[in-house]
Amino acid sequence: MAVCCVQRVSTSGRRLVILADGHLNFHFGKTAIGLLRYRAGDVVAVIDRESAGRDTQAALGVGGTTPIVATLTEALQYRPDALLLGVATRGGTIPVEWRPVLRAAVDHRLDLICGLHEFLGDDPELAMAAEAAGVQLIDVRKPAPDHTVAEYRPHRPGSTVITMVGSDCAVGKMSVALDVEAEATRQGMDMYFVATGQTGMMIAGNGIPLDRIIGDFMAGAVEGAVRDAAEAHDVVLVEGQGSLLHPAYSGVTLALIHGSQPDAMILVVKPAIDTIEDYPVPIPPVLKLIETYEAAAGWVKPARVIAVAVNSHGLPAEQARRIVEHIAIETGLPATDTFLFGARPLVDVIETFQNERR
Amino acid sequence: MAVCCVQRVSTSGRRLVILADGHLNFHFGKTAIGLLRYRAGDVVAVIDRESAGRDTQAALGVGGTTPIVATLTEALQYRPDALLLGVATRGGTIPVEWRPVLRAAVDHRLDLICGLHEFLGDDPELAMAAEAAGVQLIDVRKPAPDHTVAEYRPHRPGSTVITMVGSDCAVGKMSVALDVEAEATRQGMDMYFVATGQTGMMIAGNGIPLDRIIGDFMAGAVEGAVRDAAEAHDVVLVEGQGSLLHPAYSGVTLALIHGSQPDAMILVVKPAIDTIEDYPVPIPPVLKLIETYEAAAGWVKPARVIAVAVNSHGLPAEQARRIVEHIAIETGLPATDTFLFGARPLVDVIETFQNERR
Repeated sequence: MAVCCVQRVSTSGRRLVILADGHLNFHFGKTAIGLLRYRAGDVVAVIDRESAGRDTQAALGVGGTTPIVATLTEALQYRPDALLLGVATRGGTIPVEWRPVLRAAVDHRLDLICGLHEFLGDDPELAMAAEAAGVQLIDVRKPAPDHTVAEYRPHRPGSTVITMVGSDCAVGKMSVALDVEAEATRQGMDMYFVATGQTGMMIAGNGIPLDRIIGDFMAGAVEGAVRDAAEAHDVVLVEGQGSLLHPAYSGVTLALIHGSQPDAMILVVKPAIDTIEDYPVPIPPVLKLIETYEAAAGWVKPARVIAVAVNSHGLPAEQARRIVEHIAIETGLPATDTFLFGARPLVDVIETFQNERR
Repeated sequence: MAVCCVQRVSTSGRRLVILADGHLNFHFGKTAIGLLRYRAGDVVAVIDRESAGRDTQAALGVGGTTPIVATLTEALQYRPDALLLGVATRGGTIPVEWRPVLRAAVDHRLDLICGLHEFLGDDPELAMAAEAAGVQLIDVRKPAPDHTVAEYRPHRPGSTVITMVGSDCAVGKMSVALDVEAEATRQGMDMYFVATGQTGMMIAGNGIPLDRIIGDFMAGAVEGAVRDAAEAHDVVLVEGQGSLLHPAYSGVTLALIHGSQPDAMILVVKPAIDTIEDYPVPIPPVLKLIETYEAAAGWVKPARVIAVAVNSHGLPAEQARRIVEHIAIETGLPATDTFLFGARPLVDVIETFQNERR
């Protein structure tokens, strides 16, 4: 597949140690947890003092027997070849207290992999040390120097593009997409996941760092990646970003929707939260969210929300099941929590949607 | 006024020659025309072979007796101290045929001022020549290296923020704002114009190049500029960008709306066009546009459209008057074409709106 703007990220076949010290939670630690959930085979250890001594399955419910250790020195016994910064900080800065660890990792000849807005390569000391040690500083979020304005060209006839949208950041849009992709692949469907964020790129091995791209070129970057994927695959599943209700990131979300020109959308909600993270902006009910996303997509090209994924993290399974059932009845759409109940309902509705369009 | 992200642009007190050769029209030449309309006193000549020999008033209806000449050599007789690239190309590239002119201008010791995405300073040959000649290469659209995430902090109580929105790019959102600012100032109102695009910045002397800023930080940059302006002024008028219906730039528009947190909006429409420039996306009727912008603003903070500005460029004055009257009746809002009929109705409605909020 020839792509102009999609970047490769060489995380595959690696022996990664994930640095998550002090950030191993389900919000800002979403990079660490995403890697552990979808690429556990490439992770040899996680660094976090607080949870050290346990394995990631016991501490986080993901990643099997991957050990958690307190220090880089301890992690070295697992013979890592790269250290991955497993955090998504507000504003994308590198935690200052991690600097000595990064420097030590370079001196131990580990490549560094970072998905933050702040680039490793911009630190002269680290860059010099990396050159001396012969290791790579991989800044996943550094966009290709590509200035493409969206052209609004149609996708290949016969292809189906589904874009993930959500009530907020960090509600699980990427995880749902990866769960759907895995289930679809099991069922023999030709589905391709287009990563649009740093964690998705680390997991998929390629993608575009949408929220890092210059405003005027965001939609163009998405359009290129999605159009190329639609040339080669029956179903393209586009990773979501942010939320239309997010005071800081809504512009990225709208560029994603208009750039991807979806044929349909899947909405991800997290009923346990009722305001946007860190902002006093109320999240409206599911029906209103559906109306909002369909209206916004429709300004450029009509697209329906065809299913709802529910993130019921933290709720008892029985309550989660009731919420999922309630949302399915309320919206008249298939609903599931892919983590608890699997992605099958979402794959089925995508298949039905595809068939209706033929 | 202490500002973190607002950039200064030293166009004031200059003797500018505007290079517009081959691009002197109302769409891509909007930078040249904006400067001629609002800063004619600083412009000594315009370069455009096609219109050479006439003055800008005769050729374009703006800029008074500013001469249009065919070449840089002819322009030099007017003793310019800087050459300003008067074009807004698609994708923001510097027209290749202009390269020799830029180089010659540097050799004649003129500073260069450019608002395109492609930066003068990134051209090694030009950069070396500029250094040798002791002149400046001023890239207006180069954003400050500032990574601020929007905080959604309220503006100063008592301040009123009005954001310009429009049916499309290049429909006159900036011109309407500048006309309103001039009229408000004549009436003694304390109004401040926040430039958010390269032409606005060249005219105002400062601002933020919003569409050049990284996706995640667009709303934060707008918020900072608007909040600082609202600290010091009664009414803040925010330059619009793009359109929510624009397949390539809608993300920039939504970031502008949510970042500026307007108390009200003014909608600019151009009835002579019915699809988005270069894209087969229909522009809906005025009432639907108002509904769209109010809905999108309301996802984060409610704001009404309080007036409609009509760009009736190219229509006879009588037809323009009928269209303005029709829109006023249809929407129940004050409407005007500021170029033909003045900005007074818009200033009046802003004053009324301010009083209602007290």
